This record gives sequence, structure tokens and C-alpha cells, in this order.
Amino acid sequence: MTAFASIAAFETALATLPQADDQARAAATARQGQLTKPPGSLGRLEDIAIFLAGWQGIERPRIERGRAVIFAGNHGVTARGVSAFPADVTVQMVANFAAGGAAINALAAAAGLELAVVPLDLDQPTADFTAAPAMTVEECLSALSAGAEAVGDADLLVLGEMGIGNSTAAAALAAASFGGEPALWVGPGTGLDARGVRRKAEVVTEGLALHREHLTSAFEILRRLGGREIAGMAGAVLAARHRRIPVVLDGFIGTAAVAPLASANPAIVAHCLSGHCSAEPGHVLLLARLGLEPILSLNMRLGEASGAAVAAQIIRAAIAAHNGMATFAEAGIAGA
Amino acid sequence: MTAFASIAAFETALATLPQADDQARAAATARQGQLTKPPGSLGRLEDIAIFLAGWQGIERPRIERGRAVIFAGNHGVTARGVSAFPADVTVQMVANFAAGGAAINALAAAAGLELAVVPLDLDQPTADFTAAPAMTVEECLSALSAGAEAVGDADLLVLGEMGIGNSTAAAALAAASFGGEPALWVGPGTGLDARGVRRKAEVVTEGLALHREHLTSAFEILRRLGGREIAGMAGAVLAARHRRIPVVLDGFIGTAAVAPLASANPAIVAHCLSGHCSAEPGHVLLLARLGLEPILSLNMRLGEASGAAVAAQIIRAAIAAHNGMATFAEAGIAGA
Repeated sequence: MTAFASIAAFETALATLPQADDQARAAATARQGQLTKPPGSLGRLEDIAIFLAGWQGIERPRIERGRAVIFAGNHGVTARGVSAFPADVTVQMVANFAAGGAAINALAAAAGLELAVVPLDLDQPTADFTAAPAMTVEECLSALSAGAEAVGDADLLVLGEMGIGNSTAAAALAAASFGGEPALWVGPGTGLDARGVRRKAEVVTEGLALHREHLTSAFEILRRLGGREIAGMAGAVLAARHRRIPVVLDGFIGTAAVAPLASANPAIVAHCLSGHCSAEPGHVLLLARLGLEPILSLNMRLGEASGAAVAAQIIRAAIAAHNGMATFAEAGIAGA
Repeated sequence: MTAFASIAAFETALATLPQADDQARAAATARQGQLTKPPGSLGRLEDIAIFLAGWQGIERPRIERGRAVIFAGNHGVTARGVSAFPADVTVQMVANFAAGGAAINALAAAAGLELAVVPLDLDQPTADFTAAPAMTVEECLSALSAGAEAVGDADLLVLGEMGIGNSTAAAALAAASFGGEPALWVGPGTGLDARGVRRKAEVVTEGLALHREHLTSAFEILRRLGGREIAGMAGAVLAARHRRIPVVLDGFIGTAAVAPLASANPAIVAHCLSGHCSAEPGHVLLLARLGLEPILSLNMRLGEASGAAVAAQIIRAAIAAHNGMATFAEAGIAGA
């Protein structure tokens, strides 16, 4: 599967999710019990190693082709004054990614991840979702397909985004997927003050009201309230699942991209790790609804896959311990 | 300063702590404000970079000689049945460190840290602290000095320990330093059941009662209730401070080693980061008393510097972003 040619193709993919390899999981679990440490004493590192073993289908998982992908898109809703930065910054930051000067350049390199940037029609912002659907059917399918194509042959996929205005879209997606007042899901984003956050909640309320009768499927929620970079991430998550490639989600926006999919099929998050709990207040709620526990909580709120890229280092540590440690038998040590 | 030749030398060192370089801190803070991201959006990574700049005394800190040191010691109190593992395991695990088979071997390598193991008289367990002081004055000074000597020329020092029985000593040190019922400070350690944990609390209570009148200085608390590997970590923390080398503390035992020092001079923790919040319940209390916020919370409870070594990867990420990112001016991007 490389692309989503139709709504039906997308819906079929979402309804037919493959599962992890139980034998590889069991083998990795058994190995953890034999390593020279008290059982369970590596905590989350053990869980992560076993998770990767299951999705990669091998007892000793590895990251040889770790890839961070940043999708970028522009949002018509920025006309409503929902961001602390002007919309031009999206293009400027994509240039900064290309030049190697952004946080994700440094953080991906530190984590040994290849970095791919996928700008999606930056000269064509989505429509303001308080006035019309953000995307046409074709635009949304195209963005989903771009996401699927960016997955490539990665053995760990780290997803992130850049898009001035997209924390407003993300709040709308979360509210449409899981309910709750818009005020619960909005936050300061890149740095709004309290008045800006209230305006953002009003904008989300307007959008939900306009599209209310149509928010009945994952596709329509994504199309009407999302954005190209958000649909790109959603497409990448879904395509990665069909290739059994484990995914690391970044912050609020990257997690919100999965919310519509999870509202249709909650099993979609089984191959996903949450890299980092964002300082954006809606993220905690969203993670709870998805049943994801973030690996890190470092008060970051940048996006760009930055939190997920840092989490990839923890995942590397988990693999290093899992593959590199001696067993009690190998080391000649008495067990408990 | 390479060693603590007398109690007076130790006490003078603890009373005359140097501070971070304010100019380097200010320069690093200013740099963070110019990098291509919303102000503050890298959260803890920004704080860590600025912290390191202050202690290393340069605007752009680095880790070129990162060193993990594991101190190992044996504890007479194991005769009281306070551990799920037999005391022989300390020697066996030191052999495992030397052979490269332990968790810390894999995790230090993953974090790019040199690993040094300092076994301290493993054939001579400390005395059972419920019957006598754990160490003589000379033994305690010797262990403190071994800690100071292990610091070397590291530019980041990651400290850890191995010592069957030492979570009992750590609980006693925490209670003697900060008060509170022994039951608050004890936990399952490597895997005690509830009855074992109650026995451990009784043992700590006995020790505190025996030594009560003498627990009036950092040195006496360490000497009477600690252990060689614990004094080794305390000596390393103090010596590193006088060389302005930033330190990453590991879990409950490594943090408890600093508790007696902090009870005499709370400023001792200013050059320390807490790498990881252990699953051992007393650790949260201890961190709160010391005013330290752990970088990671991954449910680990192994010791061996394992949590701190994983945290060193986060510290590397913080440095990578701080040193590697472009400023708004360099990237030609409009600020907020």
C-alpha cells in the first residue's frame, strides 16, 4: 500500500489493521527475564524493547533506518488571529530545516535519525474551517498519500509537523473526535496570551458548529478541520501500521492527527509510542483518551518532531540494554 | 583537592562550595532567546543547557569527557535479611561490569560515556549498623577520597552504585538527614515483598536508635549508617563541585548519598541534576527535600547509574540544540 486513492481505500486500511508478532514479543519478554538485573528493574525500557520486538517481528529489535519526517502545511484559520507568529513563518522554518538550523536538525542528528521534510502546498493554505471545509476530498487524499509515501523503509518512524495555526486545527480535531468543550482542548500554542486562547476557543466552537452534521467519519473530521500536514501524519501512521513499522508521535498536534482515526478504530495506536507530553494543556487529555503514556515530559512545546526525536534516544537505550546485556547464565550470577 | 585526609578537610570542603559562572549562564540564556523557536519552547532542554554553561563556565557547553563511575561496596546489614539477593551478587555484578555484560555497560556506551568501576573493599563488608558504626573514621575518609579521585577530568560526571543491601543504608541516611518515620523511606529495593519491607523499616529504626546521639554531622551520618560505595559517591559529588564539574545523580541510593551533605549545606546540590526518578518510593520524597526535579521517570529501579546514563542522552540533546541551532537573525526569520 503506498497511497490512499479513495475514501474507501483509506477506510479499508483503517478497518484492517495488522497486529504485532506475538512470538517475537514472547521471545523478547523471555529474554528480558534472563538479563542480569532484578526482573522489571529497567521499567519502561523493558516495555519499549518488547514493543519494538513485536512490531519489528524479531526478538532483538534494532534501529538502522530511523527516520524523522516533518510535514508542513499552512492554515487559512490563521486569518482569525489564532497564532502568536505570522503564517509566513511556516515557509521560513521549512527553509531553516533545509539549511540545518532548526531544533529538529540538531535533535535528529543527536538521535541518529535521517530527517525528511515534506512541505505540502505551502503556497495554498487550507480554507478557514470556520467558513468552509479546510480541504477538498482530493486535497485530503493527496495529503494522506504524501504521508504514506514518506514512510519508506524506516524501521522506526518519528513524526512531526510545522504549520503556523495548527494547534487550533488540532484542538478542533480532538474536540470532534472525543467531545468536550473547545476550552478544554485549546492552549497557548507558540505563545498566545489568555485573551488569544479565549479567541482560539471561540474559533474552534465556530468550526465545530459549521461542520457538526458532517463530523461522522475519520476522513470527514480530518478533511473539514485538519490541515495538510496533519493529514500527512495521519496517512503516515496508517501506512506504517500496514508495514508494521513502529511510530513515535510528537506533541499535541501530532497526537491530534491520530485522534480521528482512533475515534473510528481505537486499535490504531497499538504501534505508536508517545514520545513526549507537551506543555500544551490539551495533550494530557488526548493521551489519556488514546491510552498512550508519554516517554518523556520535559516541558517542551515546539513541535517539529522535537520531543519524539529526543524520545528516540530513550528507545535506542532500551534496545542497547535489551540486545547488549548478558543473561544470568552467561555471567554466572545467582538469580533472585 | 584530590582527597579528604581528615574530617576537618571534608567539613571545610563542604562549607566552601564554589558557585556557577554567572556570566556564562547569562550568555547561554541570551543565546537561547535568539534561537529559531518560540521562547521557552524547548522547556527543560533549555534549562539544562544553561545549567551546564554555568558550571562549565562557557556559553556553549560540551560533553567530550563524559564519565560514568560506579562505586561498589558490601554491607554487613545484609545479615538482617534486608535484600532479595544474596550479598555475593555485589562481587558477581562487578565482574559483570568488567566483562561488559551489565545494563550500565550498554547504557553508558549508548550515551557515549566512559565507564569506570570502583570496587571498595568488597571482601570487607561494612559493619551491621544495627550493632556498630558501619565504618571507622579511616574507612569513611578512605571511601570519600576514593570518590574524589574517581572524578578525574570529566566534563560531565554520572554517578552510580552497586551494593546488595544498600537501599537499607540509603533509607537510614535519608531518615537521619531529613527526619520522618523509617517506613516512609524504605521500599522493595531489588524486589522485597511487603513483609521484607516491614523488616527493613525495623532494621532502619534499630540503627537510628543505636546511633541517635551521634547523628549530628554529615560525616557521622555517612560513617555510621552509610557504606563505602555511598561515601564514594558523596566524595565524588563534593570533589566535582570544587572542580565545577556538573554531576548527574542516579536513583534512590545515589541521591541518598547526598542527603547528609545537604543536611549540613543545602547548596551542595546546585551542580547536580537528578537523572531519573526511581520506582523506589522514598526517592520522590528525597528529591523534594533536595529541591531536585528528575529529568526522566521511566519506572527504573536498577541502580548502577543506569537511569543517570539514560538521562545523559537528554543532556546531549540539550547541548546539541543549544550549540547547533541557528538564531532568528542567522536564518532570516521574523520573531514573535
